[in-house]
Amino acid sequence: MNYSQKKIDISDEKCPVKASLSILGGKWPLIILYQINNRIIRYGELKRSIPGISEKMLIQTLNQLVEHKLVHKKAYPEIPPRVEYSLTNIGYNSLPIIDKLEEFGRAHLL
Amino acid sequence: MNYSQKKIDISDEKCPVKASLSILGGKWPLIILYQINNRIIRYGELKRSIPGISEKMLIQTLNQLVEHKLVHKKAYPEIPPRVEYSLTNIGYNSLPIIDKLEEFGRAHLL
Repeated sequence: MNYSQKKIDISDEKCPVKASLSILGGKWPLIILYQINNRIIRYGELKRSIPGISEKMLIQTLNQLVEHKLVHKKAYPEIPPRVEYSLTNIGYNSLPIIDKLEEFGRAHLL
Repeated sequence: MNYSQKKIDISDEKCPVKASLSILGGKWPLIILYQINNRIIRYGELKRSIPGISEKMLIQTLNQLVEHKLVHKKAYPEIPPRVEYSLTNIGYNSLPIIDKLEEFGRAHLL
């Protein structure tokens, strides 16, 4: 996109960037979506893939992502219980955002 | 990118996505970068472009973005004081992330 020709509306409640950040902003949602990615991943593996996140924060953020229909949760009635997470189509559509975050981090921060 | 072939490293301190979010995550940094965009913008105009942000949060986030070299601040020795903000090259390179957030918001949230 040619940024010099872009008209910028104010960031009020109709701003799509603000709307996205209301769901995806914060420290963890995009990291969790990035780690699930194209996988069907069990809770334990997901937890291990994100060192530094607390159990409480992981469960809370996962529940929000399920509520917003970005993540699908499947619980199997087994003992011990097995819970698997995967991206919905909407969740999958967040991956291009994460690609750009990855490029930016690699280019400027690491 | 073909996500089905992508190898995903764990999100530890070497993760570029996590590194980007440590600077760009949170409610306001990307909104502020989006609003500055290709403009040289005065503090007052920037404030008006983001309804809902407090003076304290705007100044604090701008200072962090200046510190991380994403935003350039120029203060003119005038009365009343004039302060203008613009993106650095690094800041400019964050705009593709914001484009994707905008696309996602438009497609799924508005």
